[in-house]
Amino acid sequence: MSLTVVGSMAFDALETPFGKTDKIVGGAATYISLSASYFVKPVNVVSVVGGDFDQDHISLMHTRNISTEGVQVKQDEKSFFWSGRYFNDMNSRETLVTELNVLGDFDPIIPAAYQGCEFLMLGNLAPQVQKTVIERLTTRPKLIVMDTMNFWMDIALAELKETMAMVDVLSINDEEARQLSGEYSLVKAAKVIMAMGPKFLIIKKGEHGALLFNENNVFFAPALPLEEVFDPTGAGDTFAGGFIGYIASTGDTSFENMKRAVIHGSAMASFCVEQFGTERLKTLSQDEISARVQKFVELVAFEAEV
Amino acid sequence: MSLTVVGSMAFDALETPFGKTDKIVGGAATYISLSASYFVKPVNVVSVVGGDFDQDHISLMHTRNISTEGVQVKQDEKSFFWSGRYFNDMNSRETLVTELNVLGDFDPIIPAAYQGCEFLMLGNLAPQVQKTVIERLTTRPKLIVMDTMNFWMDIALAELKETMAMVDVLSINDEEARQLSGEYSLVKAAKVIMAMGPKFLIIKKGEHGALLFNENNVFFAPALPLEEVFDPTGAGDTFAGGFIGYIASTGDTSFENMKRAVIHGSAMASFCVEQFGTERLKTLSQDEISARVQKFVELVAFEAEV
Repeated sequence: MSLTVVGSMAFDALETPFGKTDKIVGGAATYISLSASYFVKPVNVVSVVGGDFDQDHISLMHTRNISTEGVQVKQDEKSFFWSGRYFNDMNSRETLVTELNVLGDFDPIIPAAYQGCEFLMLGNLAPQVQKTVIERLTTRPKLIVMDTMNFWMDIALAELKETMAMVDVLSINDEEARQLSGEYSLVKAAKVIMAMGPKFLIIKKGEHGALLFNENNVFFAPALPLEEVFDPTGAGDTFAGGFIGYIASTGDTSFENMKRAVIHGSAMASFCVEQFGTERLKTLSQDEISARVQKFVELVAFEAEV
Repeated sequence: MSLTVVGSMAFDALETPFGKTDKIVGGAATYISLSASYFVKPVNVVSVVGGDFDQDHISLMHTRNISTEGVQVKQDEKSFFWSGRYFNDMNSRETLVTELNVLGDFDPIIPAAYQGCEFLMLGNLAPQVQKTVIERLTTRPKLIVMDTMNFWMDIALAELKETMAMVDVLSINDEEARQLSGEYSLVKAAKVIMAMGPKFLIIKKGEHGALLFNENNVFFAPALPLEEVFDPTGAGDTFAGGFIGYIASTGDTSFENMKRAVIHGSAMASFCVEQFGTERLKTLSQDEISARVQKFVELVAFEAEV
């Protein structure tokens, strides 16, 4: 099953209570495609980078069967750059620098080889760009998953709602769900948001897990209690990559299968936070992933009857 | 199996985004005993009230097979009174009034009929008083569960640690676990706290569920996503009552059974928050409780393999 991923490929400079990094490779499409590559091949990426982007990273993507044919390289420009600092609780952070650079006028190009893809993951980007990607696909994918953030709710709500109405699954965090719906209760928020278009809604709660809503059904996936969260950057995108990757590998878009996909996404995110940036996502084995999924199974398992 | 519960019986005046109450019956022992009474009979209460306490409430406790023989009535004094206001997120609150009244010099009396109880629940109280109760029992109960709060960590840490070393299960919230251990990671915090004495640790995370630790094992129980949390007062005590009540009803203190107990405690807490004060806990049916437990089962259920 073919998967196309749209999103940023970028440089991040990170500061956490455990240390800081120079510019390292980041961006939504980077995390999503690496994560998804453990489940499905090929993963087709649509993105844009500057002439400064890390060629070793592009090579790494190729070894993981990620196609970068749809990644435009603007040699004379610079890649998107974000710098941020996490506070002690790792759930809040401040942005130090945002340089849009090549992302400022990103006009996505869909290579012919990507046409006909069955699964589409729209990583966090301007909703207008996400919409353009949907429109440039000659056949509508079987499932479209969209990630977004509060930034677009603040400055491009109308466009966000237009794009949302075209997708099957929306993935946002708890604060964003509250902002978008105007409801504090996540159960009420989910109803309001699903009425805007997406039949499925994932609400990510960071260290508190994730909720999957569909009609009147709800599924809860815990986050794994970890000794240490080293760097939360990319956890949400890694979650999304595991989620769509698992669905693409099975071809099954039922609610029951989405539950498993949420668990696989959560497992991938639990690896991501163990090291800085994408480091931990580069060399995972299938055995490690299976063992981690099993930990999620055991975490909530109990015999209801004795 | 016999259960003894120690804790306050009090008046609360509550203000939530949904309204406010006059003085209504509250207190740790009130919520714990009501909740536990759905699982085990009799529930023996050790507490103290003033001459102003609500006789109808005492009668209600009797109809639910809760013994108040260990509840001292100081006719010329006033019952403990607490008044608080919840903020919009329902996870934070401010205390408006605290009047210790009869609780100020509480000297617990254990009636002869309570001696030999197999299960003891120490509701939140001065740790010295909790310790006195343990010392006044002629035989050590099979299982002692202790609840406490940050207030005692601030002003009576040495006494708190002494009492903690005498119990089997400690129940606190996430912020308290961090304060008590000095560790931000709850996994690390649990290790530090279990090294202080309790073999089992419950960390309550409010709307984010609860964790149960024992040695290197961890179990996670979600909170039920609710349309509305009407009044969170007593949710932690109601959880504790369901937890110890379920264990007392089964007589099984294994980790596996404690998992089920955590789910039953969570189910009871989910009822508690649906109305002001103890209202919802007065008239539950076994069918309602079973159906609610089933919702917790379904919330996290997925087929790991297809």
